[in-house]
Amino acid sequence: MSSGRPITFTRGVPPADSFPVDEVVECADTILRLDPAVLLQYGKSTGYQPLREWIAQANGRAVDDVLISNGSLQILDFIGTALLSDNDVVFVEAPTYDRAITTFRRHRARVVGIPLQNDGVDIAAFEQALRREVPRLVYIIADFQNPSGATTSATKRRRLVELAQEYDFWIIEDAPYRHLRYYGEPQPTLLSLGPQRVLQLSSFSKQISPGMRLGYVIAPAEIISRLARIAEDTYISPTMPSEGIVYEYCRRGYLERNLPRLLALYRPKLEATLASLRRELPEASFMTPEGGYFVGVNLPIAVSGKELAARAAKVSLVLTDGDGFFPEKPAQAFVRIPFCGITVPEIEEGVARLAQVYRELTK
Amino acid sequence: MSSGRPITFTRGVPPADSFPVDEVVECADTILRLDPAVLLQYGKSTGYQPLREWIAQANGRAVDDVLISNGSLQILDFIGTALLSDNDVVFVEAPTYDRAITTFRRHRARVVGIPLQNDGVDIAAFEQALRREVPRLVYIIADFQNPSGATTSATKRRRLVELAQEYDFWIIEDAPYRHLRYYGEPQPTLLSLGPQRVLQLSSFSKQISPGMRLGYVIAPAEIISRLARIAEDTYISPTMPSEGIVYEYCRRGYLERNLPRLLALYRPKLEATLASLRRELPEASFMTPEGGYFVGVNLPIAVSGKELAARAAKVSLVLTDGDGFFPEKPAQAFVRIPFCGITVPEIEEGVARLAQVYRELTK
Repeated sequence: MSSGRPITFTRGVPPADSFPVDEVVECADTILRLDPAVLLQYGKSTGYQPLREWIAQANGRAVDDVLISNGSLQILDFIGTALLSDNDVVFVEAPTYDRAITTFRRHRARVVGIPLQNDGVDIAAFEQALRREVPRLVYIIADFQNPSGATTSATKRRRLVELAQEYDFWIIEDAPYRHLRYYGEPQPTLLSLGPQRVLQLSSFSKQISPGMRLGYVIAPAEIISRLARIAEDTYISPTMPSEGIVYEYCRRGYLERNLPRLLALYRPKLEATLASLRRELPEASFMTPEGGYFVGVNLPIAVSGKELAARAAKVSLVLTDGDGFFPEKPAQAFVRIPFCGITVPEIEEGVARLAQVYRELTK
Repeated sequence: MSSGRPITFTRGVPPADSFPVDEVVECADTILRLDPAVLLQYGKSTGYQPLREWIAQANGRAVDDVLISNGSLQILDFIGTALLSDNDVVFVEAPTYDRAITTFRRHRARVVGIPLQNDGVDIAAFEQALRREVPRLVYIIADFQNPSGATTSATKRRRLVELAQEYDFWIIEDAPYRHLRYYGEPQPTLLSLGPQRVLQLSSFSKQISPGMRLGYVIAPAEIISRLARIAEDTYISPTMPSEGIVYEYCRRGYLERNLPRLLALYRPKLEATLASLRRELPEASFMTPEGGYFVGVNLPIAVSGKELAARAAKVSLVLTDGDGFFPEKPAQAFVRIPFCGITVPEIEEGVARLAQVYRELTK
């Protein structure tokens, strides 16, 4: 087998050249001098008030509907504490974000996967599952889903919100990739369709920098105040200087300018991923994402994620165990390709190595 | 009753004039330009490696014995997840840090208070409690205790570590105030006396800035690696830019220079607190702390913390509910005076108001 420099298809991280270093330094300098008595002091558990206000305004909501935390995964953990009791049921898309499954299970919930289609969860399967048991939470990544790349259609979004109202469950809409749309038109957010039943998580990780660990949630004020109490009991207040930096970055209009730059950086990588897959792995099925970080690939072969990763390692291709994205082991092998953090030649070489591993396994 | 501008005896916060703003801005500028590919990216769940190494070296430990997080309370929560099962027993000093009690209870532990004396917990009571049941964890603030100001003697520190070894429990040594010693000689840390049985929490909150939310734990490497997995599942990595800033601050030797400045700022406030108490409230008993943030005051009167706070509010004196510092309601009223964040005239006026409230209640 051919090999070479390791190629990493594991974590959904941005490339270092996407970081707006000069602007971040400039914003740090300005805001730390301007507001040190707030940014260097214990803050409120809801986050830095000017940034809270900026987020509220950008989303047409009241400031009491917003809580900022050290990354949105941390907020998912708070939501677990606030809303889940032992043995509660959580519906997720299958596949879904592996860390979300881990978080729900840490809160002693039972996680049920609903099959994901090109245009969002299989609604018939969802309704069938609903008739068996009503979940406490439903976790949906509606835009450029992690790990598949799927985007939920407007029709399915409306239906999910209707069902949430009818059966009285909460929807967590995890939307970190929403602003990274390379093609097509935005669909309405679940939050806009069902503001009383939806908790929307988002983050600046994919828009500015993940090292800032700056996530937020938009939800009804009574939920926010419960999360704020849990946040205070957990860490008193989130880290303030990075919130100040991001506030200054947004206030100056740098975020608006940064997004087109990121789209121009990432779109060719998505195109290279899809072209490589079509060329090298015509047997595979995969969605054609309109944005985001990931292309999910189904290989028509019954091999465990662990086994596939072990085989890939032999040709210096680093894969995540694809089974981790499913609450229950999938029938076929699944590979997530996070294309943003690597170069076009790495994508092409990585897909070629994946095809080689696949052919070894099927010959 | 006389009144006036509100005086706040609630949270243990530093005053804004203690923040080394220019140095922080300078360090932010340097380190964000020097290491953006690490500080703006997802980090390791153990924290920014150069700062980890700095902390390890400053404490004479291996780097694998250190984990950095968004404040030390967050680490206490991780320790709860790692070490506590439902109905496990935790011994604490009575009184103790109220948020620690909350954290242990959130992890479904049963919290048992051991009476605190001038020189640390009452060892006879501790041993008696031990014969009834062996705790999983013992939580001790050995230096300038929150909320009492007590410092545990070297003899008691040695005995606690011996007992931990004999009965096989973990000691959490929470040491955020240790570097703020205004008088006397440092006692050996519990960590140094029992490195295999002690998890030491500390923080830069009281040494540089609490808004940075920068706490750390020093413990045996196998504990650190369990905490690191929990941290990764909770927030992937802690907030990186503030860790970079604090690293640069320490590396330049600014921390060494800042500490004498803080001692000079806080010592007169401690002296004013003790002098005011002696003058205004000779009936009260209180310890005479050698450092830290707090003087704890016992008033010889059986009134609830809530009632006392309500009475104090009428003369614009803002008190925490003192009962919250005890796992079980104390027999006498307890008031914590956090003297660092307020001015000497505020301390004097606040103690005078407290005396006035006390006299109203006892006349």
